[in-house]
Amino acid sequence: MARPGMRATVRDIAAETGLSIATVSRVLNGQSNVAPHTRELVLQVVGRLGDQAPRPRAAQETMAGGTVYVRCPYLLTDYFGLIVSSIGETVELHGGQMILSTGESARRPALSGLPGRSDIAGAILILPPEPGEELVRLRDRRFPFVVIDPRTPPPKDIVAVSAAHFAGARKLMAHVVELGHRRVGIIGGPVKWLPSEARLAGYTASLADVGVLPSAELLRNVLEPNAENGYRAACELLDLPERPTALVAFNDKMAVGALWAAAERGLSVPGDLSVAGFDDIDLSRATLPMLTTVRQPLQEMGRMAVTLLMRLLSRHTLEALHVSLGTDVIVRDSTGPAPR
Amino acid sequence: MARPGMRATVRDIAAETGLSIATVSRVLNGQSNVAPHTRELVLQVVGRLGDQAPRPRAAQETMAGGTVYVRCPYLLTDYFGLIVSSIGETVELHGGQMILSTGESARRPALSGLPGRSDIAGAILILPPEPGEELVRLRDRRFPFVVIDPRTPPPKDIVAVSAAHFAGARKLMAHVVELGHRRVGIIGGPVKWLPSEARLAGYTASLADVGVLPSAELLRNVLEPNAENGYRAACELLDLPERPTALVAFNDKMAVGALWAAAERGLSVPGDLSVAGFDDIDLSRATLPMLTTVRQPLQEMGRMAVTLLMRLLSRHTLEALHVSLGTDVIVRDSTGPAPR
Repeated sequence: MARPGMRATVRDIAAETGLSIATVSRVLNGQSNVAPHTRELVLQVVGRLGDQAPRPRAAQETMAGGTVYVRCPYLLTDYFGLIVSSIGETVELHGGQMILSTGESARRPALSGLPGRSDIAGAILILPPEPGEELVRLRDRRFPFVVIDPRTPPPKDIVAVSAAHFAGARKLMAHVVELGHRRVGIIGGPVKWLPSEARLAGYTASLADVGVLPSAELLRNVLEPNAENGYRAACELLDLPERPTALVAFNDKMAVGALWAAAERGLSVPGDLSVAGFDDIDLSRATLPMLTTVRQPLQEMGRMAVTLLMRLLSRHTLEALHVSLGTDVIVRDSTGPAPR
Repeated sequence: MARPGMRATVRDIAAETGLSIATVSRVLNGQSNVAPHTRELVLQVVGRLGDQAPRPRAAQETMAGGTVYVRCPYLLTDYFGLIVSSIGETVELHGGQMILSTGESARRPALSGLPGRSDIAGAILILPPEPGEELVRLRDRRFPFVVIDPRTPPPKDIVAVSAAHFAGARKLMAHVVELGHRRVGIIGGPVKWLPSEARLAGYTASLADVGVLPSAELLRNVLEPNAENGYRAACELLDLPERPTALVAFNDKMAVGALWAAAERGLSVPGDLSVAGFDDIDLSRATLPMLTTVRQPLQEMGRMAVTLLMRLLSRHTLEALHVSLGTDVIVRDSTGPAPR
């Protein structure tokens, strides 16, 4: 129906669906007085059209009265809790409200239901477990959403916010090698996660700078990055015939597990062994010695996601679709000179 | 209009408001097709009638399609995050959804707006900062809600869930005095909070059992129970002319601060000083030595609140309006025999 390269009109969609122009407009502008089946029919056509679909009229300039659906299928301990807190505060500050879905993995509601819901203006998806294609399908249906902390490299046109994993990890490992460490055990995150791979690449880059090549013997990946798994991985690394002089963990929780393993073996930190984490959550200052780590701007990630979603809702052009927020190395007492 | 001691009828309210019987029924049954002004008018009359107001018809038996408004005006770090996670999961398990409001203190939305919202079935209020009278007013308007962790003693007819603060604190202090400690510094929570006062009463009871009377010199209350304030209070207590041999803190975060103060003074824990917390969040196992603490059933508190709210929504009678969930003392390595 639409000419190649030309944008389709509301009239085109009305003709194709047999609906009135007014009804098609109501769907495209996200108004609520439309039957679910009718909405679905219009959205299917819009999905097929992709970039050629008509643009909805500029809607809200603020969140006023709008509801943001936030999905975080993980326990709200410090890391995710801080992100969700700041999303909630920012949404409320702009006069909106947040529906929060915390259902874990198997029970999480399908994304495909979101565009059909007239009570939801847009969504923020935190570390979504779905494959990238599913996110593309959601975008193709013109549903406005922002991804925080994508698990896989996000497709080009999807709006995503994350921390500068590579840069942060690289700076952290630069600090560790500067202290003279060359045999460094890495307790990595889940394989195939973007944050795990980007941090690993950062660690590897700084090790390569001093002529150390990656070694499979010194790398352990875990399925779930918690203290218990950090402990188990650290035990394996510390029990190698030639013990590493430093352990660098994917997050602070796993670094806590590494401290358990060190204490169990009578190793003093940082005298015998240096340990470092990532995230800078409260946990990193509860340990003795306190953890050297990488600060992620968790609350700023939440605020930035809301800002980007508001711009999507008001149809501003987004210049940088993938926003990466800076990270800082926080040097505390768990890292020290490599033992001679 | 209603005879003393008799329940008013829908007809009575229709006569008083000038609305139709059908409209009054729609408001009482929480249906959404009512203008906000009309709803407010009916609810005002219902509020004045109090216990004499007509009972709404039994509504949902499950949460199906229902929205629960959850208000937690605190940062979602481990403590509140775990409660909110379990509320969200339980609500979703029953087919409902959760609106979460996290706006802190000054910016939090007023409770008085809740009964007028047709999109909300009921609410769960976590540690609400409002005075008890405001909660009573909300109840008088027949809005269904459950309080988790009330800050002040909840009025009789308000449904509340909390942990057994007194019993948990008493058991913890019994453990401490059994180790021979008699000079025990207490880092208390905010004054006039129910949890602070109940825990303090528990500590005091176990100290009294061994003939130790409360001492103002050994008690410090903080405004906000975080690690920094725990550290400051611990410094004051440890710098007393006669140093306490044990510090018991209102929560694990403050106990972490006490460990900082001990380390700074070169005191070994538990050799020179025993330290104990309350909550059993992840933090309590990140410390070295790990913290002796009281386990609060945080996730069970969330689940229980949802169950009670569902019973309120389906108008079951609630036998125990104030539910107190059991707590356990978890003995780890931060407490030991009092130094001679």
